[in-house]
Amino acid sequence: MRADNRAVHNRLRRIEGQVRGLQRMVDEDAYCIDILTQVAAVQTALEQVAVNVLDAHVRHCVADAVAGDGPQSDEKLDELMAAVRRFAKVR
Amino acid sequence: MRADNRAVHNRLRRIEGQVRGLQRMVDEDAYCIDILTQVAAVQTALEQVAVNVLDAHVRHCVADAVAGDGPQSDEKLDELMAAVRRFAKVR
Amino acid sequence: MRADNRAVHNRLRRIEGQVRGLQRMVDEDAYCIDILTQVAAVQTALEQVAVNVLDAHVRHCVADAVAGDGPQSDEKLDELMAAVRRFAKVR
Amino acid sequence: MRADNRAVHNRLRRIEGQVRGLQRMVDEDAYCIDILTQVAAVQTALEQVAVNVLDAHVRHCVADAVAGDGPQSDEKLDELMAAVRRFAKVR
Repeated sequence: MRADNRAVHNRLRRIEGQVRGLQRMVDEDAYCIDILTQVAAVQTALEQVAVNVLDAHVRHCVADAVAGDGPQSDEKLDELMAAVRRFAKVR
Repeated sequence: MRADNRAVHNRLRRIEGQVRGLQRMVDEDAYCIDILTQVAAVQTALEQVAVNVLDAHVRHCVADAVAGDGPQSDEKLDELMAAVRRFAKVR
Repeated sequence: MRADNRAVHNRLRRIEGQVRGLQRMVDEDAYCIDILTQVAAVQTALEQVAVNVLDAHVRHCVADAVAGDGPQSDEKLDELMAAVRRFAKVR
Repeated sequence: MRADNRAVHNRLRRIEGQVRGLQRMVDEDAYCIDILTQVAAVQTALEQVAVNVLDAHVRHCVADAVAGDGPQSDEKLDELMAAVRRFAKVR
C-alpha cells in the first residue's frame, strides 16, 4: 500500500467511526440540528478524501498520460473532467 | 425509536457498509476514478439522510414552534436557516 | 417595493455588473484561472441572494401558513423543502 | 477572439439577461419560490461557464505545461487543484 493510500485509508476509518456515531445519535433520538451538524462533518471528511484521490490521480495518472501524449491523453482528460463535474455536482 | 428514525438508521447502516467497501478499494489500489465514483455515491446517500432529517425537523420541531408562536419561534427559524446554509455550503 | 426587496435588487445590480466584467475578461482573453475566480465570486453573490429570498420566504410566507394551520400548511412545507433541495443541489 | 471564447461570451450575455429578468421579478414582488427557481437557473448557467473555462484550461494550459514538463508543470497542477476545490466548494 502506498503512503497516500494509507492516509486515505485512515481517513475512511475515521469516517466509518463517525457514521457509527451518527447511528447512535439517531437511535438515542438526538436533536435534529445536532444530527445535521454531524452529517455535515462527515460530508466534509468525505470531500477531503475525494480531493486527496483526485489530486493523486491528476499528478500521477493524468500527468503521465499527457506527458506520454499517447492516444490515452484525451481520454484521460475527458475522464478527469467528468469526475470534476460529478464532484462539483454539475450536470 | 420512531418509524422515520428507523429508516434513517438503516440508511446509515448501508452508508457504513459503503465506507468499508471504499477502504477495501483503497487497500486493493483500485483505479482512482472508480474510487471517486464510489465516494460520490456515499455523498449522495448522506445528502439523502440530511434531507430526511431536515424534513422531519421542519415538519415537527419548526412547525410546532411557529404554530405555538412562543418566544422560541424566531430562534427555531434562525437555527433552521443556519442548518440550510450549512447544508447548501453557503457561507 | 419593500425594504428587503430593495437590498436584493441592489445585490442583483452588482451581479449584473460582475457578469459584464466577466464578458470583458473573456473578450480580452484573460487567464482562465482569473476568469474562474471571478465566476466563483458571482456564484457566491447569487447564493447570498438565494439565502436572502429563502430567509424572507421562511419568515413570512411559510411561518404565516403554518401559524394559520390551514390546508396550505403542508403544501407550503413541501414547496419549501423542494426549494431547499434544489438550492443544496440534492436530487 | 477564439471560437470557444465566443461561446462563453454568448453564455454570459444570456446570463446578464437572466439577471436583469430577476431584478424585474423582485421589483414586481414575484413569488419567492419563483425567484428561487430563476436564481437556480442562473447558477446552473454559470456552472456551465465555469466547466467550459476549466475544460479549455485543462486541455490547453495544463496539458501544455505537463507535456513540456518544465518547472511550471507542478505549479500548474497546484493551481488547477485549487480551482477545482473552489469550484466544488471544498475548503
